[in-house]
Amino acid sequence: MGKHDSEELKPVAADASAEDRLIATYFRPLVTHPGAFDLADDAAAIAPPPGCDLVLTTDGVISGVHFFVDDPGDAVARKVLRINLSDLAAKGAAPLGFLLSIGLPAGLPPDWVKSFARGLGEDAEHYGCPLLGGDTDKSPGAITAYIVALGAVPHGGMLRRKGARPGDLVVATGTIGDAALGLLLRRDAAAARRWRLDAAMRDHLASRYLLPQPRTAIAAALRRHASAAIDVSDGLVGDLAKLCRVSGVGAEIAVADLPLSPAACQAVTQEPALIETILTGGDDFEVVATFAPDRFEPFRQEAAAVGVMITQIGTVTAGDSADFRDAHGRVLAFRHRSYSHF
Amino acid sequence: MGKHDSEELKPVAADASAEDRLIATYFRPLVTHPGAFDLADDAAAIAPPPGCDLVLTTDGVISGVHFFVDDPGDAVARKVLRINLSDLAAKGAAPLGFLLSIGLPAGLPPDWVKSFARGLGEDAEHYGCPLLGGDTDKSPGAITAYIVALGAVPHGGMLRRKGARPGDLVVATGTIGDAALGLLLRRDAAAARRWRLDAAMRDHLASRYLLPQPRTAIAAALRRHASAAIDVSDGLVGDLAKLCRVSGVGAEIAVADLPLSPAACQAVTQEPALIETILTGGDDFEVVATFAPDRFEPFRQEAAAVGVMITQIGTVTAGDSADFRDAHGRVLAFRHRSYSHF
Repeated sequence: MGKHDSEELKPVAADASAEDRLIATYFRPLVTHPGAFDLADDAAAIAPPPGCDLVLTTDGVISGVHFFVDDPGDAVARKVLRINLSDLAAKGAAPLGFLLSIGLPAGLPPDWVKSFARGLGEDAEHYGCPLLGGDTDKSPGAITAYIVALGAVPHGGMLRRKGARPGDLVVATGTIGDAALGLLLRRDAAAARRWRLDAAMRDHLASRYLLPQPRTAIAAALRRHASAAIDVSDGLVGDLAKLCRVSGVGAEIAVADLPLSPAACQAVTQEPALIETILTGGDDFEVVATFAPDRFEPFRQEAAAVGVMITQIGTVTAGDSADFRDAHGRVLAFRHRSYSHF
Repeated sequence: MGKHDSEELKPVAADASAEDRLIATYFRPLVTHPGAFDLADDAAAIAPPPGCDLVLTTDGVISGVHFFVDDPGDAVARKVLRINLSDLAAKGAAPLGFLLSIGLPAGLPPDWVKSFARGLGEDAEHYGCPLLGGDTDKSPGAITAYIVALGAVPHGGMLRRKGARPGDLVVATGTIGDAALGLLLRRDAAAARRWRLDAAMRDHLASRYLLPQPRTAIAAALRRHASAAIDVSDGLVGDLAKLCRVSGVGAEIAVADLPLSPAACQAVTQEPALIETILTGGDDFEVVATFAPDRFEPFRQEAAAVGVMITQIGTVTAGDSADFRDAHGRVLAFRHRSYSHF
């Protein structure tokens, strides 16, 4: 794949519908997998690697809900693919491919769709997750993009939310809270001055909201070593609570140990109440995983080898709640434990 | 599965988000497949039968585009599952399960969602296609429901649009045009009198629009005997043209041989111009397939054994267009060859 100009595209039959032309013009050039049949069929065929289970996950984005209508098409495409790749990574699954269902309102500029397809193709190549098929519809209002991502794990080996045991270490990838702060900045540009952010810090937070970084590189290491995992999409507090609930355990998290970016540190220093946004705001797309104590060191080494930052943030307990303690040992209370669409 | 009352539902943790409660209340009771992990994870794991390819297809419905906002929830759920099952049938694939991504606007009555879930569960059981996972979002306006259906075929055996050869017979399942006429009736109730339909005929057309009948029962027979197939969703004329284009062939169809229901016959007798609606209106969700002459008889017997009506409607030619001829041998011309969303 890579960049395609319209003149390189395959010719489309004269009696093809507008829908067929849209697919042929923008999406067929992205196809690299033989099971996509050049999008000439409305189904894909894929044989998982022998001895493997297929892992399936789906997430979508809707304009006005998950992204801004003026976000560039390529960023929207990357975001919807990456949030699904983040899900696969938290399952310990290697990407196999994806299906896209896109709903486009009348009047959307063709350049937006062209940009969307370009971003999608570049990320599909980068993450080794080819387009397998999909569906294109007119939408009455919002732009909608749903992806189903397929991954592979050895049979029975999908990493789950269930499996954490008391005494396990709780570990987070990357940094927490950047995307939620980036979203605040997007809605209130003046906040950058209030938080005394320099331009680089501001851009860091903005880009963390716009473009998640799925932890695909450590998916296999997670599967081999973690006892449970979840990708942090609705906020660390709420998502860790989900993992604990399904595992039947509690957790103790030291807020002082949380990995914050320099920009997030700066913001929360200026406005301490932001810690709630950082912990519950969502859109992190990092992985929180638990490890039996003897499995952490080999995982740490494998993560270091591929350059993914990881941080121990607490421990699993025999309790029934995930408690976040401040530097004075007090358990923080939150107004909303996680982002909910309802 | 079957019917579930809310008092039978599993308890939901007190701190679960509204989103979690919605899933736990309406969708978790539908789960029958172990790889759905009770929807407690945000991914499913599935091992295709040994030696099989996984077939993936996706189709969605949006209120105001594919269904009416006052359609009952259970009918919408059945429709979106069945249009995907129809795709699988045309690929010769046995259903394995599906993922659902649903977008719900604020203010939708809980009874609508309850009805949606009930219809979904009943059809999932009836067609042997269990819910594996999904995604639930707030929608800014329309109700959206996307399904990805998974099926299995022996390795390399997916039936495709490509493969028709000159001399093959063209065969259609069921009857053509009912759903398109049902949609007209839905928009213009007075048409029933104009077309002199009795109540049974009117109800037949209305139900054919509301509830597709996927040809799952003959999927395996299609795979064993057909040279190519497509499910008729955008109209027979346009969809057969797609099959011919991808196969590099033409076709000759005798309009007099088309399988019409008594209701469609009655309507077109009263208003001959309706033949265009019947042939290009879409939403049939029947299968059109091609057969080498010696493969038709064994297929016919297998279809008869499971009670699926099939009709030979024409032949594949070495030409490059699919021509529909009237009783005088004239090729019909159509204003729109198929339904297009754009």
